[in-house]
Amino acid sequence: MILTVTLNTALDITYTVPALAPHTSHRVGEVAERPGGKGLNVARVLAALGHDTVVTGFAGGPVGAVLRELLAPLGPRDALVPIAGNTRRTIAVADLASGDTTQLNEPGPVVSPGEWAAFLDTYTALLAGARAVALCGSLPPGLHVGAYADLVRRARAAEVPVLLDTSGEPLRRGIAARPDLVKPNADELAGLTGSREPLRAARDARRRGATGVVASLGSDGLLAATPDGVWWATPPAPVRGNPTGAGDSAVAALLAGVVGGQPWPRTLAHAVALSAATVLAPAAGEFDRSAYEELLPRVRVTDRAAAA
Amino acid sequence: MILTVTLNTALDITYTVPALAPHTSHRVGEVAERPGGKGLNVARVLAALGHDTVVTGFAGGPVGAVLRELLAPLGPRDALVPIAGNTRRTIAVADLASGDTTQLNEPGPVVSPGEWAAFLDTYTALLAGARAVALCGSLPPGLHVGAYADLVRRARAAEVPVLLDTSGEPLRRGIAARPDLVKPNADELAGLTGSREPLRAARDARRRGATGVVASLGSDGLLAATPDGVWWATPPAPVRGNPTGAGDSAVAALLAGVVGGQPWPRTLAHAVALSAATVLAPAAGEFDRSAYEELLPRVRVTDRAAAA
Repeated sequence: MILTVTLNTALDITYTVPALAPHTSHRVGEVAERPGGKGLNVARVLAALGHDTVVTGFAGGPVGAVLRELLAPLGPRDALVPIAGNTRRTIAVADLASGDTTQLNEPGPVVSPGEWAAFLDTYTALLAGARAVALCGSLPPGLHVGAYADLVRRARAAEVPVLLDTSGEPLRRGIAARPDLVKPNADELAGLTGSREPLRAARDARRRGATGVVASLGSDGLLAATPDGVWWATPPAPVRGNPTGAGDSAVAALLAGVVGGQPWPRTLAHAVALSAATVLAPAAGEFDRSAYEELLPRVRVTDRAAAA
Repeated sequence: MILTVTLNTALDITYTVPALAPHTSHRVGEVAERPGGKGLNVARVLAALGHDTVVTGFAGGPVGAVLRELLAPLGPRDALVPIAGNTRRTIAVADLASGDTTQLNEPGPVVSPGEWAAFLDTYTALLAGARAVALCGSLPPGLHVGAYADLVRRARAAEVPVLLDTSGEPLRRGIAARPDLVKPNADELAGLTGSREPLRAARDARRRGATGVVASLGSDGLLAATPDGVWWATPPAPVRGNPTGAGDSAVAALLAGVVGGQPWPRTLAHAVALSAATVLAPAAGEFDRSAYEELLPRVRVTDRAAAA
């Protein structure tokens, strides 16, 4: 089983409007709701690829109940820990005119020390059956900034490969606990290392504690710095669409590669193809399967060890 | 008991952001939720004024459950009829920078013929104990455009004074069923009559079937055209604040005047003062009580019968 952790799950709500005009009133056309949060997106992609997947993290209140109800018929198994607070909503307002989206993200519920302790029990029990674990997204209010570092250490103690995908101080602290893999985007990597030169920054992130670093660089693909080598994997051509969830699909492919014992170039090719196929799909956590299969053999993976 | 009907109730959600910028991502600061819909606002104000008040209409799904939970500790008694669909949300995005608000209103759940029949039974039973009834706001999808006309006729058959506060074709049809009072704003009145001259338009609305017309004209106050005379009631000075709910507070004051058998000038003075005190309060359905008391003796009511 592959485990994904989403401490700040969300009910993702999408509104369609002709065009968003600040300080006016809008009648929303369509309303769509889906279970969200990075780890849930990762788990949905993994389940769609045929992997046995379990999601944990927190869910609570009326919004958490809706999230769990929407999650139930989907692939991942629900091991979310109940909390007293109300799970957050995110609102994506999609303009029909421009195709652009305006995002409003609630901060999330406060997690109490008792709820965190209950989560640690669940997490530790789940690790016993996990072949890999991904720790994804922001921390909700109430959790200490070293929460991910704690979870990384517990995964390492259980000898479960652990991937960390977060940002800011939680990423900085988490990396120091020596995760097997981190997947920052260009901004997160620059925030961590102070460098906008991806190869230099990825190597710096390794020195800070990450065994492997896979940086997601948008249309420039993925840069991997690992103990086995350095590779750059790029899509055959830029794809246009909704980039939300592309990074989560990359994480799903990286986890699948880890548990399958695949060589890095093959894993990276899958991650790039799956990311691009996600940009082509309308919603995060979904991907265009035929585009994925069509793109996979066309991803270019370059060995950058020479640049080392 | 005073009855208010809100067929398209809403969970009103307010987000605070530094400034809304289309096509970017925002972290929401504060999240506030309250039971909404015009008739619920009217009922809250009536209850705050000491009136025994009952709310009916529809509520359903997880959002409806939250609405009813938030309504329970408030003054009005809950006689909402359950439906299978999910009650709508409205999102008000308040800019801290400008103080302006951007509104996103979901369309509302589809009401089935069976649910409408169940509502009619509840409504008819409640009319037996009502001293006045207000029919407020938009119609949810699935209801025929003559729904309010039907409710007006039932109130008249039960000899309960009925106030209609809606817009568009439901207002046009509803007026033809001869309600005791309508409370259009300037736009609604112009939409109904084709005239932007308030006195002419109010008289036209009376000819269309409304026994009395009280037009809410923003900072210009209220214009009443009734069988007893024509009056213009104006606040002592324009007030600055959030106009949401000001019209609902005017409706509350008009209902209170009707059940109290008050003369029109006194009722109109209360309605203007209560509207202004609502503009000064942060949320719809609430008003600044000391401002209300301070403004009341300063409202100017002019007999316009001479202009007839």
